[in-house]
Amino acid sequence: MSAHSHASPLSSAASDARPVLAVDIGGTKIATALVHPDASVSHRVVVPTPVTGGREEAQAVVTAAALGVLEHAAAAGGVRGIGIGSAGPIDPDAGTISPVMIPVLRDAPLRTWASAWAPDVPVNLAGDGICMAVGEHWAGAGLGVRNMLGCTVSTGVGGGLILDGRPWTGPSANAGHIGHVIIDPDGSDCPCGSRGCLELAASGTALLARARAAGWSRPGDGRTAADLAVAARAGDALARGIFAEAGRALAAAFTSVSAVCDLDLIVVGGGVAQAGRPLFDAIEAGMREFAGLPFLHRTAVRPARLGADAGLVGAAAFLHLPQRYAAPAAVPTL
Amino acid sequence: MSAHSHASPLSSAASDARPVLAVDIGGTKIATALVHPDASVSHRVVVPTPVTGGREEAQAVVTAAALGVLEHAAAAGGVRGIGIGSAGPIDPDAGTISPVMIPVLRDAPLRTWASAWAPDVPVNLAGDGICMAVGEHWAGAGLGVRNMLGCTVSTGVGGGLILDGRPWTGPSANAGHIGHVIIDPDGSDCPCGSRGCLELAASGTALLARARAAGWSRPGDGRTAADLAVAARAGDALARGIFAEAGRALAAAFTSVSAVCDLDLIVVGGGVAQAGRPLFDAIEAGMREFAGLPFLHRTAVRPARLGADAGLVGAAAFLHLPQRYAAPAAVPTL
Repeated sequence: MSAHSHASPLSSAASDARPVLAVDIGGTKIATALVHPDASVSHRVVVPTPVTGGREEAQAVVTAAALGVLEHAAAAGGVRGIGIGSAGPIDPDAGTISPVMIPVLRDAPLRTWASAWAPDVPVNLAGDGICMAVGEHWAGAGLGVRNMLGCTVSTGVGGGLILDGRPWTGPSANAGHIGHVIIDPDGSDCPCGSRGCLELAASGTALLARARAAGWSRPGDGRTAADLAVAARAGDALARGIFAEAGRALAAAFTSVSAVCDLDLIVVGGGVAQAGRPLFDAIEAGMREFAGLPFLHRTAVRPARLGADAGLVGAAAFLHLPQRYAAPAAVPTL
Repeated sequence: MSAHSHASPLSSAASDARPVLAVDIGGTKIATALVHPDASVSHRVVVPTPVTGGREEAQAVVTAAALGVLEHAAAAGGVRGIGIGSAGPIDPDAGTISPVMIPVLRDAPLRTWASAWAPDVPVNLAGDGICMAVGEHWAGAGLGVRNMLGCTVSTGVGGGLILDGRPWTGPSANAGHIGHVIIDPDGSDCPCGSRGCLELAASGTALLARARAAGWSRPGDGRTAADLAVAARAGDALARGIFAEAGRALAAAFTSVSAVCDLDLIVVGGGVAQAGRPLFDAIEAGMREFAGLPFLHRTAVRPARLGADAGLVGAAAFLHLPQRYAAPAAVPTL
C-alpha cells in the first residue's frame, strides 16, 4: 500500500540493534523517545507544544527535544532512523505537517528538520492515527491481528486502519478518520465543516462540555475529561451516563466501518478510554445492538495496551519493520 | 488481499482468448453470459430466480442456464473459467452461497455445481457487491482508478471496495456492505438486526414504500421503484423529493466511508440509479454538505456505466485478470 518511508533494505534491517528516534507531535504536547527493536521505549522527553512564537522558535523546541534524546543513542551506535507521527493533515510526499490545532507548525518541513538531527538515516512521516494503530498492532492489543481499526478517543477522535496486516493510509495518507464518520446527518455543525460527526458525540471535549452543561463542574474550574473518567469509574451517575452515550455512538461508527471494511478487531485508546468499564461496557452493548449481519458479530473491541506510548511505538515501527509497515504491497500488473 | 480463485498462471493467461462463463445470482433473476477478454458480453441468458421447489430443482434451473450459454463457447475452444457472483452471504472457502433472499439456495454448493459444467477450469466465487465494483473498475466508470467504492442501489443497497487497485473483500469475504452503514443510531429497525441502516433510507424498496405512503400509488398496483425513477426524471415533485432524500442519505454514508478509507471515486449503479440527475444531483449536494475535511473534497461520484452487466463482467474479471483481481498481495514477513 502507500509507501512513505526511505527505509534501509531488509538484509541490514534484520540485524540492526540500533533504536529509532520517535517523535509524536500532538496538540498539547510533543513526545520524543528512543524505541528499541523489541518495541520498548526509553529516554522519553515530553515538552508542551509551542503555541506562540514563530516557526523558528517551534523548530528550536522540537529540535532541542530530539537532540536531547538522540545523545542517549550514541552508545548504541546512533539511531537507525527517525519516525515522526503527527496530528494531521500531513503531506508525506512533501515531508511537511500542518496540524489543524498547531498554527505555528503550519506547513512545517519536519522531514527536512529531522534530516539535520541525524544525517544519513531514513525518516518516516505518518499521521498520529495510523501511528497509534501500528503501535498497537506491532506490540499492543492488536498483536497478530490482520484487520483492525485503532481508535484514539481524547481531545478529538482519530484512528488508523490495518488491512491484511499492513497500514492502509490511502492515496492522500488520511485514511482512518473515524472521528468524522457521520452518525447523525441532521446533527450539529462540526468544526471540520460537516455535521453530526462521531467526534461531536464521543471526544473528551464533547464529554466535558456535556458534563458541564449538566452542572458537573463550572467552566474554568480545571476539571478535565480525565477527571470525568475518574468520576465514572468511581460510580458517579452523571459521568457514567455520559460515557454510556459516548460508547454507544462509538459502537455505531465502529459497526459501520466494519460493515464496509470487515474488521477482526477495534482497539480503543486515548485519555477518554481511561474511563475503562463505563466506556467499554457501553461500546460492547452498542456493538450488540448495531451489529446485525452475522459477519459483524466477530468484530471484537479491546482497550489499547500501550497507553501514551502507542504513537511513539507506531512511528518507530515504520523504521524497525519497514517490510511490514512501510513497504508498498507488490502489485503485479498484467 | 483475499484469494478466492483457482486461477491459471499468468503466462497462459496473457494469451488466452477464450471467454469466461459468468453467472450472476440475484434475488429476482439469475443471469449467465460469456464475458470475453475485452470485457464484452455475449449470449446472455436470464431466468427468474427459483423461489419454490427444492434444491435439486434450483440446481437444474441454474445448470440449464449455464449449459445453454456454455455451448456457444465451444467454437472458441471452451471457457477459460467460471466466474460466479452471488447475493450474500457467501463462503468462498467452502464454495457455497446462502443468499438471504433465496431460501432455496441456502448453503448451495455452487463451486461443486460449476465444476460439473466444465471440468478442469478454475471457478471463482465472489459476492455480488464486489463483482459490481470489479466490473466497473475493469471496464466501466472506475477504469484506471485505484481506490473506489462500487455501490448498487436497487431492491437493497450493496457494494464493494477496490483499494490500491485490488478488491478488498476482507477476512470473511463480506467487506463492502455499505447498505448497513448506520446513518441514524436512533432510527428504525433494519431486517439485518441493526437499526438506522442506509438501506432503510435509500433502497428501491424504501423509496417505493415512501412514495406509496404519500399516495403516489397504491399497494399492489404494480408500480415499481423504476417507475418512480421515470416519474422523477419527468419532473414529478413527489418522486423528486424522495430521490433527493435518498441521495442525501447516500452522500452521508459515502462521506463516512471515504473519511475512513480515503477514496478517489464512488460509482453508483443499480435500478434506483437509473433515476439519473434527480438522484445524482442530490448525492453531489450531499457530498458538498458532508465532506468537511479537505481530503474528502476529492472523492468523486459517478454513475455506473455497465448497467445490468456489471456483475457479470466483474465475476469474469477474477478469471480474465487473476493477478489484478484474484491473487493475494505479496505480504513479506520479517
